[in-house]
Amino acid sequence: MLAAMRLTPLAASLPATVPFVGPEAQERAMGRRFVARIGANESVFGPSPRAVAAMAEAAASVWMYGDPELHELKAAIAAHHGVRPENVTVGEGIDGLLGNLVRLLVAPGTPVVSSAGAYPTFAYHVAGFGGTLVNVPYRGDAEDPEALLLAARKAGAPLVYLANPDNPMGSWHAGARIAEMIARLPGGCLLCLDEAYADFAPEGALPPLDVGEPRVIRMRTFSKAQGMAGARIGYALGHPELIAAFDRVRNHFGVNAIAMAGALAALGDRAWLAEVVAAVDAGRARLAGIAAANGLRALPSATNFVAVDCGRDGGFARRVLEGLVARGIFVRKPFVAPQDRCIRVTVGREADLDAFAAALPEALEAAYQ
Amino acid sequence: MLAAMRLTPLAASLPATVPFVGPEAQERAMGRRFVARIGANESVFGPSPRAVAAMAEAAASVWMYGDPELHELKAAIAAHHGVRPENVTVGEGIDGLLGNLVRLLVAPGTPVVSSAGAYPTFAYHVAGFGGTLVNVPYRGDAEDPEALLLAARKAGAPLVYLANPDNPMGSWHAGARIAEMIARLPGGCLLCLDEAYADFAPEGALPPLDVGEPRVIRMRTFSKAQGMAGARIGYALGHPELIAAFDRVRNHFGVNAIAMAGALAALGDRAWLAEVVAAVDAGRARLAGIAAANGLRALPSATNFVAVDCGRDGGFARRVLEGLVARGIFVRKPFVAPQDRCIRVTVGREADLDAFAAALPEALEAAYQ
Repeated sequence: MLAAMRLTPLAASLPATVPFVGPEAQERAMGRRFVARIGANESVFGPSPRAVAAMAEAAASVWMYGDPELHELKAAIAAHHGVRPENVTVGEGIDGLLGNLVRLLVAPGTPVVSSAGAYPTFAYHVAGFGGTLVNVPYRGDAEDPEALLLAARKAGAPLVYLANPDNPMGSWHAGARIAEMIARLPGGCLLCLDEAYADFAPEGALPPLDVGEPRVIRMRTFSKAQGMAGARIGYALGHPELIAAFDRVRNHFGVNAIAMAGALAALGDRAWLAEVVAAVDAGRARLAGIAAANGLRALPSATNFVAVDCGRDGGFARRVLEGLVARGIFVRKPFVAPQDRCIRVTVGREADLDAFAAALPEALEAAYQ
Repeated sequence: MLAAMRLTPLAASLPATVPFVGPEAQERAMGRRFVARIGANESVFGPSPRAVAAMAEAAASVWMYGDPELHELKAAIAAHHGVRPENVTVGEGIDGLLGNLVRLLVAPGTPVVSSAGAYPTFAYHVAGFGGTLVNVPYRGDAEDPEALLLAARKAGAPLVYLANPDNPMGSWHAGARIAEMIARLPGGCLLCLDEAYADFAPEGALPPLDVGEPRVIRMRTFSKAQGMAGARIGYALGHPELIAAFDRVRNHFGVNAIAMAGALAALGDRAWLAEVVAAVDAGRARLAGIAAANGLRALPSATNFVAVDCGRDGGFARRVLEGLVARGIFVRKPFVAPQDRCIRVTVGREADLDAFAAALPEALEAAYQ
């Protein structure tokens, strides 16, 4: 450690790490580009053309700082959800919002409950603020509300994380089950309900939006169905007092003004969103077909990706993944057993899925050897 | 406080605040737009046309997350400064970088040294991580390296902040003076040298860039001369170990991909930068002339703004500012005496400065009454 750099004890204890290695780093290592980029649950269908036009137009006026109160965008999001602007905070993607939420609630030693194999960036933030992550296992390839509740009670945790629909498995719970979980949270425990994939969820999979309920904060994003992952813009919905707390720690001018313009336009184009959701439905079906044609099973999914059960252990699935990557197909996989028997494939365009369909038998063949 | 929201003791102690109220909030309160937006040290000349084109083009591919390692941009910045990519970290503007730097070095109770009336966002971050800000006064409308050194030694601070050129006064020190300050830093104390306005600085105002020197980190931005304030992209230059520490806490996917594309293009357009700097020089001269025509003195400035000494106390300057705002001119002013006797006016386009020239006599007249 540099003598001039007196890191805090917490900072000194942290590794220099990255929750995810980007496909660009893999491409640099391989010395060539991926043929199909279907590993990061990005929306290959892109943003609404209206959002693209709004962003392109906003480029020339980017000399102005964006409105730190995000007044217009918050009003539009609030109108969209039938709530008030006081129920909305906007941040640099769900990643940024999770960081601020954890910062508000987690001090060194604070227990936080999540699931082993759930979103690594949440775990990164908890570690980054010195929290102690208490992980419960998945149950039947889904996060387990009952186990999360029990662990939260036992640990006295102020924060529990659940993604519905889930990443990386694509599974989901009925909205009624989530609502019941909220009702049964132990006193002083907040549920961070990550709904990044909400737009893809089937009817009934989301609990009613009740912003009078102080025990839950709901995270939404323009990164997935809205196709704006690179723009870094998402929002949280919740009780006004909880939402107001973000103003204590957020980077007030932190959201890119071009992203704001794109998000506003995207919200206004429901037809595009419906098209994307339909295309994703079709893509998921095709992915399931490709899996079946190779003797594999695609797990049911309420997202824009599919976990494909490779039928053996994590080591085998790792070899399948490596075989795909070697053939120019960027996919990822769950980290934790037994979910790690799967690979995770994002819905792509026809050409992407053609490339995947061509590469999978070869990758499997190589993995069996 | 909500029962479900168990804020950390630190978070509970923080106010819900904003370092700066945006002009948009003032416009909403007034019910009309500003005629001249010359208050936030934005570059009215906008980004390089090449950067605008690159950003507009990048909008369609924003469905992809940006490279979390920012490989290409870091390489270009490194080449531009004649250093290595390991000497560069990129973040969500200097605001974001300051937040991460403070997070690395400041725990509750850590003393941090700055100047009374210096950049409020730095103070916001120090408070946000529980640090104790030790402020020294300006000296002759400039930050005072000697006083900062003394206070850092006395407090045992791990971090001292200095902006050169300075905001909000526009003053600057010779690079040799800053180099001497770095050489005399007490052991274990890092200088955060905020060089947001470096592109406007006269010859000799910047110390040599020595990335083998572990006692200083230098903050640069695309927000000022590069005209990309709304894009939220800046970088820090320093010793590789110091730079690597940011990977412990940064939001790895946090920089907007469109901003990355714009920054890369902006770096390649030195001619545009030279044009902007020349236009700013001319604008500063005109602002000085407008001030003089009204019996006021414009302070010398190495930035894209001018502090205009209104000749009386802070209350008077406040009335001048309010008179300008009431006449549709967005300007700001220093917060702390005696600097608060000034208003701070950003260089604008001809039309902006015409509007300022027309409004200033009326605002002064009203303030004298």
